[in-house]
Amino acid sequence: MSEIRYYWEDLQPGSVRELGSVTVSAEEIKEFAEQFDPQPFHLDEVAGRRSIFGNLCASGWHTCALAMRLTVENFLNESSSMGSPGLESLRWLKPVYPGDTLMLKHSIVESRPMRKRLDTGIVSSVWEMFNQNGEKVMQMEGYGMFRRRHPATPEEIERLDRERGA
Amino acid sequence: MSEIRYYWEDLQPGSVRELGSVTVSAEEIKEFAEQFDPQPFHLDEVAGRRSIFGNLCASGWHTCALAMRLTVENFLNESSSMGSPGLESLRWLKPVYPGDTLMLKHSIVESRPMRKRLDTGIVSSVWEMFNQNGEKVMQMEGYGMFRRRHPATPEEIERLDRERGA
Repeated sequence: MSEIRYYWEDLQPGSVRELGSVTVSAEEIKEFAEQFDPQPFHLDEVAGRRSIFGNLCASGWHTCALAMRLTVENFLNESSSMGSPGLESLRWLKPVYPGDTLMLKHSIVESRPMRKRLDTGIVSSVWEMFNQNGEKVMQMEGYGMFRRRHPATPEEIERLDRERGA
Repeated sequence: MSEIRYYWEDLQPGSVRELGSVTVSAEEIKEFAEQFDPQPFHLDEVAGRRSIFGNLCASGWHTCALAMRLTVENFLNESSSMGSPGLESLRWLKPVYPGDTLMLKHSIVESRPMRKRLDTGIVSSVWEMFNQNGEKVMQMEGYGMFRRRHPATPEEIERLDRERGA
């Protein structure tokens, strides 16, 4: 694993990162679809043109997987990530077509200590993926867990408990 | 495309379908991870054993992609599906390990006509994936759009408008 640059304390609400871009080819779209989403408009140009999408287009899960790769390569592998419990929302907003170049933007929305694991904190994030025309094609919101530089102190936990009680 | 068996009218709230099962190998876990989620515990047994997961385990996106394949093969390709705008929730509840056999259960929760597209209806569903020990490893909730057998009538739209007004 690479060296850790980002611990929980380094991930502050309001911070925004561009996590790079990726261009997707017709061959990659079809290969992913054959394995995981064999609907006609993801497999074949003619079927795509006849569909509501107007062309061959990528599986929404392919778009998510590409966003994950950018997130891992340009963020998580340099972080103290302990995984994710899931997403609160996922939107496929526009079709992704062969040759599209997708840019990923990652914004940290919220951050809080974990009550049950003193060495870990939780961060909620929004990921937005845009194509080369600036159109947002995908957005997701979810949580990630990150190890802390320093475990929570008794004072921090006391304050947390007071806030929860309030 | 296969013949259409399921139109919007055929997808009633409360109906539950088992959408088959799939066994995932260490090779498939690593191949997906190399392409889309190159975190050490998805790529390598030794790194997996050293991680919080205790073994090589599948990317959560791999689990989703496998659920999608079962959904397409055993449901969507026989339906009038017009795609999905996204998910309301996605939970990765347990790690998926090499050799695990995952069973997918699909439950229809809600159904309503679309106001703006008279030939289409919306269905909300829950997908639950279980491993061979009966543990739930993944759950997601989201919407799908399906063409109708018969377009909405003026009476139906009137009733919809009344309900919205109420």
